[in-house]
Amino acid sequence: MIDLTDQINEEIVRSGVNASAINIFSPHSTCSVFVCENKDPNIQRDLLKKLHEFFPSDGRYAHIGGNGDAHMKASLMGSNVTIPVENAKMLLGPWQGLFFADFDGPRDREAFLTLLQ
Amino acid sequence: MIDLTDQINEEIVRSGVNASAINIFSPHSTCSVFVCENKDPNIQRDLLKKLHEFFPSDGRYAHIGGNGDAHMKASLMGSNVTIPVENAKMLLGPWQGLFFADFDGPRDREAFLTLLQ
Amino acid sequence: MIDLTDQINEEIVRSGVNASAINIFSPHSTCSVFVCENKDPNIQRDLLKKLHEFFPSDGRYAHIGGNGDAHMKASLMGSNVTIPVENAKMLLGPWQGLFFADFDGPRDREAFLTLLQ
Repeated sequence: MIDLTDQINEEIVRSGVNASAINIFSPHSTCSVFVCENKDPNIQRDLLKKLHEFFPSDGRYAHIGGNGDAHMKASLMGSNVTIPVENAKMLLGPWQGLFFADFDGPRDREAFLTLLQ
Repeated sequence: MIDLTDQINEEIVRSGVNASAINIFSPHSTCSVFVCENKDPNIQRDLLKKLHEFFPSDGRYAHIGGNGDAHMKASLMGSNVTIPVENAKMLLGPWQGLFFADFDGPRDREAFLTLLQ
Repeated sequence: MIDLTDQINEEIVRSGVNASAINIFSPHSTCSVFVCENKDPNIQRDLLKKLHEFFPSDGRYAHIGGNGDAHMKASLMGSNVTIPVENAKMLLGPWQGLFFADFDGPRDREAFLTLLQ
């Protein structure tokens, strides 16, 4: 899990657009974007461990690719979030970050940012 | 689970609107819309099986209606997604589809599409 | 879980804005906003009980704060939804409500509403 908050806020400033909200989207079927606590990395560890319990990598799945667990985690945790923007900054709470999780990585990944009016 | 990607893209073209993003919303309390892998139907089977394990249809629930599992699956998997649009097409990755899941069907269902600026 | 549907619809009317959609966002890392069935409170009870089974409050977590379960529930159930708006009202189905869940409360909480074009 990577905290993208600062990078996204920089992109909002760079765009020069006066937006009401921003949509963050993962175009990868084994990755997710979602909001999570951003101060204690142990929360991220606990969450990833739980998701692994829910979808064991050695579980019996019909999918042959070996990464069925990653696909299911991605659909469960979601591929997209829309966050309000004020003064060229996401209106996250002080304990929140905007995270990207790669459940089948590490690989080169990207996230699409779309400013909304 | 039904892949609505092509139908939604056709509606975007038909609208003639130059949108930045599209919101897809399920107005049914036992259905969800979410992004999932779109090449191997086994992934859909694995996911539905897992959701059934999480919320067994014969579980002990306070709700009497007999479809408490479907309501919980719907809240968990989500009723709405917002996907970026470019050139009148959702910017999904090559391995992604926009799926509609009816957890208490099959029934006649609908999804609301809203183009955003 | 609190059903915010009526309050949100009142705010849409009060704004006087002719919006296409509304984004509802929780700035708290232990709260969620999501759509759920709105007629039988037992469904809410069943859902909260299930989430407690998934993330027991006395589970073994790396996070020391004692509310690791609440943080994980919040990330899973989501911090944001975007709902279509028509005639100054959310286009929810007749069995749907827009709920706010405080997994580490009760406390004073807020939700951010953003109207989108």
